[in-house]
Amino acid sequence: MTGLWDGTFARGGAAAAVSDGAWLQAMLDVEAGLARAAARCGLVATTAADEVTRVAAQPGALDVAAVVARAADAGNPVPPLVRVLTDAVGPHAAAAVHVGATSQDVVDSAMVLLARRAVAAIDADLAAAADACARLAAEHRDDPVIGRTLMQQALPTTLGLKVAGWLAGLDGARTRLAAVDASLPVQYGGAVGTLAASSGSGVDVRAALADELGLTTTAVPWFTTRLPVADLAGALGAAAGVVATVALDVVLLAQTEVAEAAESGEGRGGSSAMPHKRNPVAAISARACARRAPGLVGTLFAAMEQEHERSAGAWHSEWPTLSALLSTVGSAAAWLADCLGGLRFDPVRAAAVVDAASGAQLAGALAEALTPALGRGPAHDAAADAVRQAAREGRPLADLVGERTDVDAGTLLAGAAPDTGEAAAQVDAALAAHTITRS
Amino acid sequence: MTGLWDGTFARGGAAAAVSDGAWLQAMLDVEAGLARAAARCGLVATTAADEVTRVAAQPGALDVAAVVARAADAGNPVPPLVRVLTDAVGPHAAAAVHVGATSQDVVDSAMVLLARRAVAAIDADLAAAADACARLAAEHRDDPVIGRTLMQQALPTTLGLKVAGWLAGLDGARTRLAAVDASLPVQYGGAVGTLAASSGSGVDVRAALADELGLTTTAVPWFTTRLPVADLAGALGAAAGVVATVALDVVLLAQTEVAEAAESGEGRGGSSAMPHKRNPVAAISARACARRAPGLVGTLFAAMEQEHERSAGAWHSEWPTLSALLSTVGSAAAWLADCLGGLRFDPVRAAAVVDAASGAQLAGALAEALTPALGRGPAHDAAADAVRQAAREGRPLADLVGERTDVDAGTLLAGAAPDTGEAAAQVDAALAAHTITRS
Amino acid sequence: MTGLWDGTFARGGAAAAVSDGAWLQAMLDVEAGLARAAARCGLVATTAADEVTRVAAQPGALDVAAVVARAADAGNPVPPLVRVLTDAVGPHAAAAVHVGATSQDVVDSAMVLLARRAVAAIDADLAAAADACARLAAEHRDDPVIGRTLMQQALPTTLGLKVAGWLAGLDGARTRLAAVDASLPVQYGGAVGTLAASSGSGVDVRAALADELGLTTTAVPWFTTRLPVADLAGALGAAAGVVATVALDVVLLAQTEVAEAAESGEGRGGSSAMPHKRNPVAAISARACARRAPGLVGTLFAAMEQEHERSAGAWHSEWPTLSALLSTVGSAAAWLADCLGGLRFDPVRAAAVVDAASGAQLAGALAEALTPALGRGPAHDAAADAVRQAAREGRPLADLVGERTDVDAGTLLAGAAPDTGEAAAQVDAALAAHTITRS
Amino acid sequence: MTGLWDGTFARGGAAAAVSDGAWLQAMLDVEAGLARAAARCGLVATTAADEVTRVAAQPGALDVAAVVARAADAGNPVPPLVRVLTDAVGPHAAAAVHVGATSQDVVDSAMVLLARRAVAAIDADLAAAADACARLAAEHRDDPVIGRTLMQQALPTTLGLKVAGWLAGLDGARTRLAAVDASLPVQYGGAVGTLAASSGSGVDVRAALADELGLTTTAVPWFTTRLPVADLAGALGAAAGVVATVALDVVLLAQTEVAEAAESGEGRGGSSAMPHKRNPVAAISARACARRAPGLVGTLFAAMEQEHERSAGAWHSEWPTLSALLSTVGSAAAWLADCLGGLRFDPVRAAAVVDAASGAQLAGALAEALTPALGRGPAHDAAADAVRQAAREGRPLADLVGERTDVDAGTLLAGAAPDTGEAAAQVDAALAAHTITRS
Repeated sequence: MTGLWDGTFARGGAAAAVSDGAWLQAMLDVEAGLARAAARCGLVATTAADEVTRVAAQPGALDVAAVVARAADAGNPVPPLVRVLTDAVGPHAAAAVHVGATSQDVVDSAMVLLARRAVAAIDADLAAAADACARLAAEHRDDPVIGRTLMQQALPTTLGLKVAGWLAGLDGARTRLAAVDASLPVQYGGAVGTLAASSGSGVDVRAALADELGLTTTAVPWFTTRLPVADLAGALGAAAGVVATVALDVVLLAQTEVAEAAESGEGRGGSSAMPHKRNPVAAISARACARRAPGLVGTLFAAMEQEHERSAGAWHSEWPTLSALLSTVGSAAAWLADCLGGLRFDPVRAAAVVDAASGAQLAGALAEALTPALGRGPAHDAAADAVRQAAREGRPLADLVGERTDVDAGTLLAGAAPDTGEAAAQVDAALAAHTITRS
Repeated sequence: MTGLWDGTFARGGAAAAVSDGAWLQAMLDVEAGLARAAARCGLVATTAADEVTRVAAQPGALDVAAVVARAADAGNPVPPLVRVLTDAVGPHAAAAVHVGATSQDVVDSAMVLLARRAVAAIDADLAAAADACARLAAEHRDDPVIGRTLMQQALPTTLGLKVAGWLAGLDGARTRLAAVDASLPVQYGGAVGTLAASSGSGVDVRAALADELGLTTTAVPWFTTRLPVADLAGALGAAAGVVATVALDVVLLAQTEVAEAAESGEGRGGSSAMPHKRNPVAAISARACARRAPGLVGTLFAAMEQEHERSAGAWHSEWPTLSALLSTVGSAAAWLADCLGGLRFDPVRAAAVVDAASGAQLAGALAEALTPALGRGPAHDAAADAVRQAAREGRPLADLVGERTDVDAGTLLAGAAPDTGEAAAQVDAALAAHTITRS
Repeated sequence: MTGLWDGTFARGGAAAAVSDGAWLQAMLDVEAGLARAAARCGLVATTAADEVTRVAAQPGALDVAAVVARAADAGNPVPPLVRVLTDAVGPHAAAAVHVGATSQDVVDSAMVLLARRAVAAIDADLAAAADACARLAAEHRDDPVIGRTLMQQALPTTLGLKVAGWLAGLDGARTRLAAVDASLPVQYGGAVGTLAASSGSGVDVRAALADELGLTTTAVPWFTTRLPVADLAGALGAAAGVVATVALDVVLLAQTEVAEAAESGEGRGGSSAMPHKRNPVAAISARACARRAPGLVGTLFAAMEQEHERSAGAWHSEWPTLSALLSTVGSAAAWLADCLGGLRFDPVRAAAVVDAASGAQLAGALAEALTPALGRGPAHDAAADAVRQAAREGRPLADLVGERTDVDAGTLLAGAAPDTGEAAAQVDAALAAHTITRS
Repeated sequence: MTGLWDGTFARGGAAAAVSDGAWLQAMLDVEAGLARAAARCGLVATTAADEVTRVAAQPGALDVAAVVARAADAGNPVPPLVRVLTDAVGPHAAAAVHVGATSQDVVDSAMVLLARRAVAAIDADLAAAADACARLAAEHRDDPVIGRTLMQQALPTTLGLKVAGWLAGLDGARTRLAAVDASLPVQYGGAVGTLAASSGSGVDVRAALADELGLTTTAVPWFTTRLPVADLAGALGAAAGVVATVALDVVLLAQTEVAEAAESGEGRGGSSAMPHKRNPVAAISARACARRAPGLVGTLFAAMEQEHERSAGAWHSEWPTLSALLSTVGSAAAWLADCLGGLRFDPVRAAAVVDAASGAQLAGALAEALTPALGRGPAHDAAADAVRQAAREGRPLADLVGERTDVDAGTLLAGAAPDTGEAAAQVDAALAAHTITRS
């Protein structure tokens, strides 16, 4: 029995992109690319490289069980994989397998390929979430909603601006992932990085291999200076953080007491004990997935401390950790895309809250009005006094303000209509920026 | 294709103990225990409880696919599981299913059962590792080896004492895991913790359920005060830390330049590029597994901040995180047991290093001898001067000491034989303590 | 200018207990204790030990500037401290300074003393917070409040039970801290752990030193098996987690839309832009402090991997990390004690919410009532259908239930009064357990 | 008494750049910049803005004690700072203080300024470390050293290539920090982000403020989408990881048994118990500082989940965490610059090890030579057999190879001279890239 948790924690395309089978294929892709690169540099015959490529594209025909059986004892799957692959291509092409390479060349390059494939899946879901935000921001561009700071109602803003903040976060996360994705380098150095087994053409083979795999290259191997892993960790952690903060907002807006947003999910979110409940399952699950990220990110940064030319443990710890990070960030993004794709705001209810909170806004306006005469501090105090007096006497603050002679009460009360300032202009700016990100 | 990494990262019994199937069975065990507890409290018929127990013991006969299909939408697997289980037991016993319970009661209690089963597997490997240490400490009780501080050779100690330190660490880790294991509580509170659906017998049912499952009970539900999870995280993190420090010592002792210890593993640790190499694969893999722990531990502590009567995301994030932590600590322990079970010291080589380092010890003795006359500080300086002079002149330090008239040179030189102080007594103390731990 | 953040992040007694001055004093306390222990074992004259004790009690008279100046170059403060102390006690007592010890003996033992002093301060604030909970739980033992799961209103519980959950968490955190506090061991092993410079009395000196300092002892040194640090990390992380979850509940209950609890703090929580706001500053600050803990805990667990007889970096990383952890957990506890000490519930408002939510409870009762006839699943569906129908038709659910003929509607409606089950009994159990914890 | 640990953990310029005084000044700089920006947009008089700027430049003349006293109760230092600043500028300029702003505008913008100042200090030390690497790489470009993988001697590389790896890491870390540094945005949104108190010129004021402070701007406020903090966390974590891996290499090379590198530090690294020891204190301390980073990075990523328009705790947790991260990464960089600035390699000793290891290389060459006839796998096995046979018989591997007839033994033995492949070309490439980075 498998898959009990997969619907929650292995959602979206990223989990499949980091499966055991995907790892194996990525390693085979690297071996095939290396054979072609070696052929391009004249180290092996093109026909042999083609044979390696052909065989590497059919993992089902390989003795994968042998690889699995020996991977742990070998310290990583590459030594048995090279044997199995060499056997499969036959004597004619054997010399074209693993030319000048060490296990870490293959594992690291495969890890980068794998990461790029998972990032593509993550990005698709982040893009869907961002597009949903763009639609929501446009639709609710001017709908008032109370802004909440420190979990207290504050002053009015708009649903448009709130969602534009989500949008900017998601677009920012995508921009960071894209930059890292485009920068990821191939690994190729041979046993200790000197390229000594590459017949003097190692630097050229590295460049050709990078070209074959669509990766960048580096001046020296990055065996133990793990900046590419750190780059992935940072960008994935940032994406998780953005997903988490958007999902948290949805959960808070969906609170029974707030009810300004609801997920549309039919048949989802019921309770085994409480039939009347409707939980925002997608947002909750997005939070759950995203919250796994910071610890995994920390593990990857801690693993940067690696010994000499190949690390005795820290390197290995990257494999399951990066896989888990890609998978969980992908799941978080998939849940968020799901959540936002069906999110419904209740602008009528949101507007009613803003109206009720206008007293609060009036207090702010009163403080502003008193500032020229009293200075900022005393004016602030006087406004707070008025709020307390109104509460004590059970009267609307507007009544008390109307009775004041030290301010232009009429103007104040007129101005206490919800003022959302430059919310709309900022929404438009975020939407414009989104259009550019999408291209 | 599955299992590519399992030999490395899903080693030992813990990984199987936290599999999807194990989770499902643990949830069924809780439901069965709950049915029996409800029967003991008179809430349902004993025959019905027996039927629930019978059906829950045969998950293969249940519609697990339906559970898997609906788990994510439900927010957790319990709602569909309750449906499937209720269907399977039939109308006669349906009322004995999930009595008074909420999903979290089942998930949390199952998580605790699961953790205990995985901890048992971890403990078995830690015990094997500790027993191996006890054998090694006894065998090499008095064999000298140079102590190394800040990665520099310092003064002599014994292999016995070095291993006794590992032993004390492993026994300490086991003691902590055992204490947590014995303390883990059942969860049972109903929808919001009041036990309102338990017909007035909720506290009694909780006690009976704890008894059925071999768990402790609590005064109130721990829905959002997650001390049991924190306890597991702390004890597992500590175990990982001990495994890591022992494995690191093995890796350092196995360095080509040190070569005072070697793993015995036949056919393991070869290199794809370097046939002459023999890597300490078990120790390296133990480090790799152990290094995944701190980030997972941090995630679980961070997840303690949970809302109201049930958390919207933090709770859910515990499931894969605790599973991964149990699995990786179990793998680390299994690798270490493997490593230590076959570890071979080279006491001849170790002793030779001690001899060569005796000059260092002599410097310390010289400083001690000068202290009464000069005071500790100046004596320390004078000894350091002598070391530098010896190095400058290319002469043994013993020659220079022999020429001094401000100390009893004969006694000093006689005493420069390796002095391992009370190493043996401490080894014996650790071995004695180990005997107690084993019982 | 100093102290800008101290009111927030260095609150309570723990921050002072881990100051630089406190570290210095703790190291001097260890040196003094060691002198007395050596005297008790006959290694040095009692008069000399007394002189060391006397001088160590007056750090102001020591050349602390020299210690500070040389600490970094020495790798830790002990080498210069020993020099300064030796100079200060004069030639008569010089031999009683640092007998048989290495720097790590002093730093580790001092760290443990420091931790115990900080833990005492933390515990005082946790106790105050727990006592406040006990008062609140007793006062509001039976006051209804809506339970909230996954941030949605669910079924009624009581303020008493909600606070009893907090109480159990705080008492549990205290129990864990106390257990660790009582277990913390002295460090004493000499240069490499053999006690070779302790004249054959090293084990005895260790026991005597433990006695002098009120610590436990160990069979072997724990130079690189850092279980005591892990124990502290775990217990402090758990305390932080409990504080965080209680503070989060307060923040959520204080939301404008919920307003079932408020902090009393006068003159606190105002906004520079919004005079009408009153933020729950203490709870917010408690969360801020507590959230720093998991990362620090992770760092300490990661630092357990230490080399040979003394680690080259990981050990050192413990000092600022544990100091920061003690300080921030102490600040979190102090803020929470402040928050809970003045917390005011609004039971009238809370009860009104429960009344309004009774429709939800009715749905649950309806499902229960239908279960015998339909089975749990279909009954659950039928109740959910009724809820949706009521919402669609804008009628109270009670009306629809009243019209049903498949259930005993009268009984159902009568029973829809808030049912808080065994909340009161559980509150009483938590209060009883608290009384025991306090003694 | 202060500063006990500062020489170790508050080294370099970053610690001072994040002091309490630096925070205060940064907040004043933001207020001054805001006054000027408001004047540029016509909202306040230029003379008033000039007065604010003048006063903000003299924090010593402000009532800082009042700010410190009220900061915690206010939730952050800005409310009391605004009062004190307003008082200080007098009635004429009061209206130019804090125009349209909320506390978070000031705290966030100040945090960004602070971070940039600390990053400049960090970068200076990273640059010094990188320059030292460039010198070492050039000096030892072709000096052979044994490559070590998984802590075992492998095949020869060069000191030049080893250091070029460090150089590439340090240059990469600098590139990442520079990119983040140049991207950091101003925060300006007013109470809830709408700019409603900015008289319709809020977007313009934001742009002007960004210009005044040398920061970028954003389409919408980033109150709760914390990508700039994540960017800093990622780049700082990466820098710490690079520093750690370089420092670890130094510690490993400085091991007594290896002794291929030594720190030059005079008067540093002595031991209180062992006068003959010389510890690589700078590298050890760099590791200690760097190892604090991953946990702090994790905390910052976890803090990205923030509520609504201003977070109730997560935001606050950033302040001490980012300060600590900047300080500890700065200290790590300073220690590494110190370490590398005086690092001395022992190329004679390193070369001797390579010679001794030539048997290992010979084994590799033997495997290569056998591959055409046997295929890669069997050839690999045959070479490993030869190595074992040589060890068993106590003979040089060269003797056994010399006796073989299945390979061209003469060529093999001739070729067993250390082959460092394309090490030199890669060193040159890293040095060339470094020249570009420096500009």
